[in-house]
Amino acid sequence: MSNLSTSTAKGPNARTRLLDAARDIIRAQGFASTSLDQLCTTAGVTKGSFFHHFQSKEALGVAAANYWSETTAALFASAPYHDHSEPLDRLLAYIDFRSDMIDGPIEGFTCLAGTMVQEMFGSSDAIREACNASISNHAATLEADILATMSKHGAPDGITPQSLALHTQAVLQGGFILAKAKGDPSIARDTVAHLKCYVEMLFAKGEAQ
Amino acid sequence: MSNLSTSTAKGPNARTRLLDAARDIIRAQGFASTSLDQLCTTAGVTKGSFFHHFQSKEALGVAAANYWSETTAALFASAPYHDHSEPLDRLLAYIDFRSDMIDGPIEGFTCLAGTMVQEMFGSSDAIREACNASISNHAATLEADILATMSKHGAPDGITPQSLALHTQAVLQGGFILAKAKGDPSIARDTVAHLKCYVEMLFAKGEAQ
Repeated sequence: MSNLSTSTAKGPNARTRLLDAARDIIRAQGFASTSLDQLCTTAGVTKGSFFHHFQSKEALGVAAANYWSETTAALFASAPYHDHSEPLDRLLAYIDFRSDMIDGPIEGFTCLAGTMVQEMFGSSDAIREACNASISNHAATLEADILATMSKHGAPDGITPQSLALHTQAVLQGGFILAKAKGDPSIARDTVAHLKCYVEMLFAKGEAQ
Repeated sequence: MSNLSTSTAKGPNARTRLLDAARDIIRAQGFASTSLDQLCTTAGVTKGSFFHHFQSKEALGVAAANYWSETTAALFASAPYHDHSEPLDRLLAYIDFRSDMIDGPIEGFTCLAGTMVQEMFGSSDAIREACNASISNHAATLEADILATMSKHGAPDGITPQSLALHTQAVLQGGFILAKAKGDPSIARDTVAHLKCYVEMLFAKGEAQ
């Protein structure tokens, strides 16, 4: 976590440039298709510099997932959905926030962790674990608001904060796949609209509790 | 559609063996990681035989997605969820059927089309289109039951048969990603349980219509 984003007056350092390149290229074409040559050329660094920072392509993959976790965590931590006073409003505003992010080029809004784990789950346990941490730890940031919402509004038997939080991430990941298949972000926003409808219905009955 | 699955007393022909190998290997490790050598070795065919049947690796990818569409369509067409007399029961039984399929090794229950399009959407329009056809045409098989359910039970404004059908596929695809990340099928079944809860709530209000 130390000097991941260290930069100087000249711009980001070589390690950060490699991680930025990995994020952008892997989201556009997957992990296996991404060569060290392409990463080094895009980052403007030498192969020697690559191996100074990363022991292997797998190590770069793990570091890219961790970098993704750190940078997206900062984005979500400062997002305006936290400002609502009611926990259900925060949860619904989170879903709106995610929907609003689904726009522009597909490789610009889709998830590095979901993309990498789709192809690498059986080939690299280290990459799988880093991707799982990225997705699961983000999901966990929603649990407190879901628990507070359930305490206030009730919820059907069997619904837990953890399982609903992970369901929100499954819907997003699946929406990204449909957007890729159709070449159209709107299908991902449609599926997130179903998620919002689900959350609204889950907590509507207990409004008066 | 002609002789895709042609086999003789000696077993499937070379083309079918290559398509079976592609299905199994790509689901386990993705498309880019899958070499022609690995495909030919697994299928027990020569490189010459490969290029007799497929012009390129991309052509194999398209054919693999089409083969997946045809074989899974046959599986779903003969599945028992169609036997219920009520359309809502058929829809809920479809969701149960999908949940029951989520078991065993992850590469055995996850989706070839979703896996390929995740990494290939920007690199091959032909593969993207074949994967989209696979996912979207399967979703479309649910629309008649959803329309009949909506006619009988009503539905919130803005819910259409097509968008709900595609949402079911997004939830499944996202569930597969979470199962890969956690190395555990149960998270995919959990997220499908949320989908079932959503469908039950959507159509519960209008029970008496």
